[in-house]
Amino acid sequence: MFKSPVSKIISLDNRTFRECLKLKDKKYREREGLFLVEGVNLVSEAASQGQVELVLVSDASDVKAPEGVDSVLIKDSLFKKLSDTQTSQGIIAVVKKKQLTADEFAESIIRKKGNILILDRLQDPGNIGTMIRTAEAAGYAGIIAIKGTVDVTSPKVIRSAAGSALRMPIIYMDGAEDAAQLCEKVGKRLIGTSVKNAKPFYDIDMKCDIALVIGNEGNGMSEEFENLAYENVMIPMGGNIESLNAAVAAGIIMYESVKERLNEEG
Amino acid sequence: MFKSPVSKIISLDNRTFRECLKLKDKKYREREGLFLVEGVNLVSEAASQGQVELVLVSDASDVKAPEGVDSVLIKDSLFKKLSDTQTSQGIIAVVKKKQLTADEFAESIIRKKGNILILDRLQDPGNIGTMIRTAEAAGYAGIIAIKGTVDVTSPKVIRSAAGSALRMPIIYMDGAEDAAQLCEKVGKRLIGTSVKNAKPFYDIDMKCDIALVIGNEGNGMSEEFENLAYENVMIPMGGNIESLNAAVAAGIIMYESVKERLNEEG
Repeated sequence: MFKSPVSKIISLDNRTFRECLKLKDKKYREREGLFLVEGVNLVSEAASQGQVELVLVSDASDVKAPEGVDSVLIKDSLFKKLSDTQTSQGIIAVVKKKQLTADEFAESIIRKKGNILILDRLQDPGNIGTMIRTAEAAGYAGIIAIKGTVDVTSPKVIRSAAGSALRMPIIYMDGAEDAAQLCEKVGKRLIGTSVKNAKPFYDIDMKCDIALVIGNEGNGMSEEFENLAYENVMIPMGGNIESLNAAVAAGIIMYESVKERLNEEG
Repeated sequence: MFKSPVSKIISLDNRTFRECLKLKDKKYREREGLFLVEGVNLVSEAASQGQVELVLVSDASDVKAPEGVDSVLIKDSLFKKLSDTQTSQGIIAVVKKKQLTADEFAESIIRKKGNILILDRLQDPGNIGTMIRTAEAAGYAGIIAIKGTVDVTSPKVIRSAAGSALRMPIIYMDGAEDAAQLCEKVGKRLIGTSVKNAKPFYDIDMKCDIALVIGNEGNGMSEEFENLAYENVMIPMGGNIESLNAAVAAGIIMYESVKERLNEEG
């Protein structure tokens, strides 16, 4: 479907264009197992992982598609309809989703030996992308997104993850029970972020065998996770602050484990 | 000017409405020393600090203006033109800027004993607001914004700072030299975030006598600050990550000082 038979897309009725446009819709992304990635760096990252179906380059742009992938020129006015940014670099790729089974995800975690980040029904795409990016930087091994979490292949998540959403193993799971079972299987203790009986982040051993649960921005972590968590971690706050930005909070906690690990290694 | 003589604003030509509308423009905010604050919590925070000139409440809303401040009803179609959010709570305040002199800022830093955060020409309002919020939570005493940094009274900064931009002492300074002099005067070492000769964040003593410089999102810290900095701090990154989100990076570094301080206190 995404092999374009023309050398340049110029019509709103072009089939490839119409299929691409549909990928702005989450339902269609899920059905097709495809999503859009925009910009030179992200397209090149997707290509290097062999996940690119087709690259579309605006005829108003000077950028080149990466070597070894199918590409087609597209009229800039049509390109703009696909683009999710205000100042685009003029390149978009149609990318295949990596669909991991629970077993594949578990194997990958065991091989990489890092922690797991669990996104418990998070809603802000910018925050989610930022967390995935920070997780990779902090040596986390994978992400579990609980059903209800924003689609991690949405343009804003992809953009704010700056490549990490293409590299990190990510799996959707139905609920806390399923996630907890998987974590137990790969030897990770569930660390919650409920305020109940929580310990400061620097008083918990988080080096390399935990699964950190970040709760929904408005309502926090679910009761199921509260009951399942081994212990809870909190960030002491001064001033009149009630809460930190979710991505900042996750970053502070995740980096505590980096520090512990590096200190141990010497 | 902002004492409204009518009980309800219904016309586009209403003088108060027109003055408020102009406050969406940075130049006008600077000239008048006023800015807009939206939502129940932020308006109430501004009121509790005695900085509110006038509160405007949409006639489509049930919320009440805080006690003790002037308020006026406004037709919802006009209110929407002032609002910066998609789902508004229907309340906006016109708020006086706190204009601190360098001496007042310095006194406030000495009294509060915390670190200083320096924003070196940062551009992303969401990041800036998030950093101000994290700075307050981490016990930082004040913010220096170098000329070229986005206006900290812009609606998006105010919103993402969640009240902190109304509480924290913030001062604009022309350049690195001026900022360095002020920091020296109040006994704070400049800690840069250049990658040159940088030490990991957990290897630098940052308890309570530093001024942390966060550089521009695209170009990093200025050369002037590079020359002036006592030492540089970095965050080790795994994976294929080139950089972290600026607000996350600032959060991780600022919270390191919280931890050092609390550990020392016992």
